[in-house]
Amino acid sequence: MNSLLLVAHGSRREASNEEIRALTESLRHKDGNCFADVGCAFLELAEPSIPDGIRACIARGATRVTVFPYFLSAGRHVASDIPDEVNSVVEDYPDIEITIAPYLGAAGAMGDLILQQSGSS
Amino acid sequence: MNSLLLVAHGSRREASNEEIRALTESLRHKDGNCFADVGCAFLELAEPSIPDGIRACIARGATRVTVFPYFLSAGRHVASDIPDEVNSVVEDYPDIEITIAPYLGAAGAMGDLILQQSGSS
Repeated sequence: MNSLLLVAHGSRREASNEEIRALTESLRHKDGNCFADVGCAFLELAEPSIPDGIRACIARGATRVTVFPYFLSAGRHVASDIPDEVNSVVEDYPDIEITIAPYLGAAGAMGDLILQQSGSS
Repeated sequence: MNSLLLVAHGSRREASNEEIRALTESLRHKDGNCFADVGCAFLELAEPSIPDGIRACIARGATRVTVFPYFLSAGRHVASDIPDEVNSVVEDYPDIEITIAPYLGAAGAMGDLILQQSGSS
């Protein structure tokens, strides 16, 4: 089973974390979603942590986990912190394929989304 | 003339600010962009500030400025800080229409972009 784990920064403002959980829920039911399972995790300030999020995907039956950094810029969090968190559990699950997708801000279609959202038409 | 002003948080890491400037440049030349002018500004930690970014659009000939919050969650920055910065210059330009677009994270197509970028196909 393929799981997608959406990883956000996490916020002291619980409404921001709830926004991520709602997005995760909407992805689960979205047309065109080929992941059988979608979860979320937070780098800091909210639960679950990235290792706990990966373990939860595996507990639900994942044999492959795609970690998706929901971040706009390629800073330290994307370059080091998320890979470190992921690597901390990789050795515990040698039979599970755990990969990190390119971060959100790198998406080629970001420009289109910005123009659409800002009312260019 | 319609200007789009992309507003990012700003980072101590100059490469992250450069990422925003490169995105701004790519939007300028993008097919489907109906804004005659595209600029960027930063809430903090980088230049130009939001008021300076708006003034630069107007100096380039803008009669209408759409401020686009390049933020993923509806936190204090989106709810208060960006509107406060925008409002600090609105009175100086009664003939210029300055509006704030919905923030990036609220985009209905965000789910599609996540699935595309995470390799769901």
